[in-house]
This record gives sequence, C-alpha cells and structure tokens, in this order.
Amino acid sequence: MNAQTKFDDLEVGYDVPAVPGMNEADIQTPCLVLDLDALERNIRKMGDYAKAHGMRHRVHGKMHKSVDVAKLQEELGGAVGVCCQKVSEAEVFARGGIKDVLVSNQVRDPQKIDRLARLPKLGARTIVCVDDIDNVPDLSAAAQKHGTELEVLIEIDCGAGRCGVTTTEAVVNIAKAVNAAESLKFTGIQAYQGAMQHMDSYEDRKAKLDIAIAQVADAVEGLKKEGIDCELVSGGGTGSYYFESNSGVYNELQCGSYAFMDADYGRILDKDGNRIDQGEWENAFFILTQVMSHAKADKAIVDAGLKAQSVDSGLPFIFGRDDVEYVKCSDEHGVVADPEGALKVGEKLRLVPGHCDPTANVHDWYVGVRNGKVETVWPVSARGKAY
Amino acid sequence: MNAQTKFDDLEVGYDVPAVPGMNEADIQTPCLVLDLDALERNIRKMGDYAKAHGMRHRVHGKMHKSVDVAKLQEELGGAVGVCCQKVSEAEVFARGGIKDVLVSNQVRDPQKIDRLARLPKLGARTIVCVDDIDNVPDLSAAAQKHGTELEVLIEIDCGAGRCGVTTTEAVVNIAKAVNAAESLKFTGIQAYQGAMQHMDSYEDRKAKLDIAIAQVADAVEGLKKEGIDCELVSGGGTGSYYFESNSGVYNELQCGSYAFMDADYGRILDKDGNRIDQGEWENAFFILTQVMSHAKADKAIVDAGLKAQSVDSGLPFIFGRDDVEYVKCSDEHGVVADPEGALKVGEKLRLVPGHCDPTANVHDWYVGVRNGKVETVWPVSARGKAY
Repeated sequence: MNAQTKFDDLEVGYDVPAVPGMNEADIQTPCLVLDLDALERNIRKMGDYAKAHGMRHRVHGKMHKSVDVAKLQEELGGAVGVCCQKVSEAEVFARGGIKDVLVSNQVRDPQKIDRLARLPKLGARTIVCVDDIDNVPDLSAAAQKHGTELEVLIEIDCGAGRCGVTTTEAVVNIAKAVNAAESLKFTGIQAYQGAMQHMDSYEDRKAKLDIAIAQVADAVEGLKKEGIDCELVSGGGTGSYYFESNSGVYNELQCGSYAFMDADYGRILDKDGNRIDQGEWENAFFILTQVMSHAKADKAIVDAGLKAQSVDSGLPFIFGRDDVEYVKCSDEHGVVADPEGALKVGEKLRLVPGHCDPTANVHDWYVGVRNGKVETVWPVSARGKAY
Repeated sequence: MNAQTKFDDLEVGYDVPAVPGMNEADIQTPCLVLDLDALERNIRKMGDYAKAHGMRHRVHGKMHKSVDVAKLQEELGGAVGVCCQKVSEAEVFARGGIKDVLVSNQVRDPQKIDRLARLPKLGARTIVCVDDIDNVPDLSAAAQKHGTELEVLIEIDCGAGRCGVTTTEAVVNIAKAVNAAESLKFTGIQAYQGAMQHMDSYEDRKAKLDIAIAQVADAVEGLKKEGIDCELVSGGGTGSYYFESNSGVYNELQCGSYAFMDADYGRILDKDGNRIDQGEWENAFFILTQVMSHAKADKAIVDAGLKAQSVDSGLPFIFGRDDVEYVKCSDEHGVVADPEGALKVGEKLRLVPGHCDPTANVHDWYVGVRNGKVETVWPVSARGKAY
C-alpha cells in the first residue's frame, strides 16, 4: 500500500473505488483491478529472463504510470529504473524515488527542457532522447543553468515511423555535438520498433526486427569508428524483447505491457504459434464492471464504456467467459451480448481491455486483489501527466 | 476562474498547463483549450433556441464534466440544471452548487443507490432513471433511510439499444410502482435516442426520431389513461434537438456537445445539407499540441496521442489548416503529414478531436482563452468520476 495514501480521509465510491481489507465483491465499478499473484509472476518472469540474457531491464513506466508498480518491478524483477515519454511523468517517477529515468522521447519546448534539466536535483540519473542537432545547445544551456548533467541517447527511427533519425551519419553527427556540449553526455542509442510489436506472426515480427537490428548495429559500428562507445543501446517491447536480447547489439530492454497484458497484445503469437496470453504472460490487469440493466432478454448493459477504457485497439474481452461477449461501447455503457440470459443485474465481470496504456491513463486508482480480498489501492501516480 | 483553484501553489507544466494572464503561446501542451468567445456564443444560441421553443434545457454535464461550464450554461443559456450518467458525477455537480441534477442512467449497485439517496441533502433536486420494476423498492428504501425524496423518470429505449424498456405497458407498470413507493415520486420519461445522433443525413435522423417520438407519445398517452401525468419528458441531443422540441411531446432537452463541438458531430449535415460545424455551431474545444520532431522532411510528430484524446470516433482534424493532416495516433505521438514541410519544431496546432466527451475525460484542466490570453483555468471537475 502506498504510504502516502491516507484512506481514512477518503470515501469509497466518491474518492476511491475500494480500500484495503475490503472484499473483492464490494469494489465500486468501473475500476481497474490488478491480480497481484499474476502481476508478480509476470514481473519475476521477465526479470529472470533479462538476468539470464545479461540484459538491463528499464521498465516502461508510461504503460502503468505507477510509482508502486515501478518499485515492484525493481524489487521482484531487478528493473534498473524506468523509461517514460513525458517530462511530467519523469518528475512523478523521480519524486517517487526512482533513481534512473529515461525520457524516451524528444523534449523541445523551452519550459519542458528547463524542467528536464532540474530532474537530476531530485536524485535521478536523467537521460533524454535527441533526434535533431538543433536540440543539443538548448539541452546544454538548461543543464548548465541548473548545474546538472543530462545524458543523451540518439533516437533512431528503426521502423516505428515517428521520431528518430534514419542514418548512421546523423547519429554520429549528433553524438559528436552532444559530447562537445557542456553538461551533456552521450550515453548511447534509443531504438524502439513500435510498429511491429502488435503483428500477430512471430516470423513477421522477426523480419522487422532483423532490419532494425542491422540499422542499429551499423550506427554502433559508425560511432566506434569515431572512437565513441555506446554505454546503452536501449529498446525492445513485449512483442520483440527476445530479438533484442539475442542481437548482440542491444544491452537494455524497455518492456512495459508484459506486466499487465491486454487483448491486443494477447492476440500475438509466440514462435510456437500460441497466443502470448496463453502461457508466456498472464492477464493481470482488468476493468471490473457491473451489469446495470438487463431490460432486453439477450442483452446486458454494463457500466464500463469509453470513459473507463480506450478502444483504439479494439473492444475488451470478458475474462473467463465464453457465453457472453462485449459487443458495443458508448461513453458510459457497454453492451454485452447474453444470448442465454446468463447475467443478472448487479453481477460483476472482468474485462481485458484492448490496450492497457491509454486505459490505465483514464483511471485514478489500481485496486490490487489477492484471494478475493483487496490488498492494495495504488494511485495511478502519473495519470494525466501528458505535458 | 474557479474560486477554489489556488494557482499560487501550482507549478505550470507540472500541475497545470497554464495560469490566468499567461499568453496563449506559453501554454504547456498537450492540453485542452476552450475558445471562450465561441463557447459563449454556442451556449447563448442554444439557450435562445430552447427559450423560443418553450423547452427546458437540462445540459448534459457528462460531456464536459465541469462545474464551471455548467454554471456558464445556467448563466448565459438559461439551463435549468444538468444531467449526467454516474452518481459520482452527480455528487460533483451537486457539491458544486447545481440545484437540479438528473442521473440519466440506471443505478443498481447498493452503495451507489445509498449515495444517490443522500444527494438531496446537498441541496439538489435529484432525479434518476429506472427501467426495471425490481429497482423501485431499493431506491425507496434508501430514500426512506436518509429521509430524502428521489424523483424517477422511466427510461424508454427508443432506439439507442442500451438501457430502457420498450413497451408502454412496462412504462405504466413501473410508474405505478414508483408512485406507490414511499419517498419516490414519478416525474416523467427519459427517452434519448443516442444511436441516431451521429447519422450524417438530416432525413435519416428525422426518420429515426419520428419512430422515437411515436413511441414516447404512446407511453405518455398510456400513462394519462391511468391518470398519471408526466411533468418531464426529457431527451434530445445535438443531432436531434429540433425534432424533440417540435414534437409536442418532449418538454426538456439534454444537449451537450453543441457547446464544444467535435469532429464527429461536425460532419453531420443540417436540413440544408451543411456541416453543423459550418454555421450552426462553432468549434470551441481544442487539443493544443506542439511539434516535437521533424526528423523526416514530410512528417511532423506532435505531442498529442492516445493519452490526450479518444479516437473511438476517428482521428482529430487540424483546425484552420488545409496543408497538414493528422494521420496516425499512438500513445504519446501524433503523426502529421506535412508534404510541403510547412511546420517547424515547437510550432503549436489546434486539434479538433473526434469525440469531445471521452477526450475531456482524460484531461485535468480546461484552459479558457480570449484574444491570445489565458483568461480562465477550470478543473475538469468530474474527471474520472466513472463510479
């Protein structure tokens, strides 16, 4: 339980969906529920994997936005710190006691750069990505102003089609500029292939990662020729980590969704053709929802709609039930096809949302359950921290 | 400016995206921006319309979740109160001083019913929807326990396919049960046709509403035969309010999105075949976003992705720009096609999101701007209140 949460002052339902000690049946819906046993097993498994493969694991904190989950990943999974996508998220993690924070994104706004340069004063090693040589003097000036040091990874676009440079020449040029700048240190390469993570076929994912690895290897080689070593080559997600960790080039993973799982990741297949939520990882993350209307015999209406989840990657599925199906989602309503009339008003269901990251971001609390009891209630510490 | 917000204690960027008095150019992105002139014109226009047509206007507070916007709708638009979809939202509005609150949804959970029955103690007339006769004794018992009165609208499913009964017989039976129950009062009918609001064609929408109106008229007639009068017949949205207000049956509107507008509503056509965001209503609601990378010549990357909006109704469009297009959205990144390389890193753009309701729900603040200055910063008071 987060020591800073004083439950005595809070009213269940108004402020929080549950309090520790409560029966799972009494949790107010809709809310996020974590199966703590499954969560801990996922975290330990990825930690053991990373250790066995000699990889650092910098967990992607932007997925859960929770200081408590990040600390569990350090404690049980040997995580070395977090990455996140926004300066405001990094501030939450650093203030929460995480000592190694990478903003795996570009920071260009003057005020955001200023806040980034203050982060080391909170006791966190602070690393940021750069994909434009024009960013270097601004970062340097802010770090000098605050008497801090910022470390820099050059971001390579290895197929995600978002930020990042695409040539080794650009990597080398920016790295040289970083090393020549006061109060900055070149630390390595950021290369996350985001676009392939959700491709169903293992072979298709491998083909995309082979291209990315070749691109990153070329950049590392290009830097070496100039006498520049990469301390960190960082990347890899839940759909690709086995490729990066066997690449001989990457030395740091950035997996996030493995800890929670979601419907969209669950559908992708491992090398034996099995869904990754059927053995590789467990569903630990659910939206608890309740039937609030059953006025039509074959249709139940539940209380989790668009304001309890993101449907960008499809509708949720109902965990452990083959007889009913979540078929439609509006702002505050979910329509569940119930052809046999199996559901009753008041009944609760666990939904596995399509996409865990933006779903976590609409909620204020995680309710951690074990053996039918509420064990922990954690704030979604960096919820809404989009700046 | 909300009197309860003490800006002296807050840090721009960390806690709030802006403070009153700031230049619009310095607002931290991504965040919600309201064009106050456009917002006020929309509110006045709908208020004038409702008044001219003898309709009460109960604004849909679940759209904006803001006590400040609801009060502006009372002040400038003559709104009689709010409707919302959750007890936790109703609590926020009642605590904020709104005196007439309808939960336009089913409330079945025992704890939610208990909290609902306490709402009148906050000074708010409290109305709730019912679609199941089994709900009546539970509501009655809770109101008796707290010494309050709950008013009831029977919800008719007039085409939305969610909650609601479908026969006049069911309406009459539940109304009788309500009137026979201690501490409950039958007040009328809730009949919102949600499914037709976003149909592009005016004629298609009219056809759907004609069916709904006939169904509601039959129920009103059926009640009258039993000597039961409807004080309120409530419904109507931004895509249908002209039908309900000329029906001779409805006497209360529940429009929400007209005040803000969004891309999905903007696309629907009025009776003359014009988009409703080209004359009928103005875009007053934007996501302000900033270019953070332009490493590829024809592609700008902006800082508003899935955690700054809901894409359930499609991607946002870029307000006032025909030369660039928002083409892809991931968690924290938006990809903007910029074929002419018109955009610069640091440049800010206004996005009109696909769907205003779930987009407002991921943000903590509205930044109200006028003449290039930040005039107000309002909390999204009921953000995350999904219980």
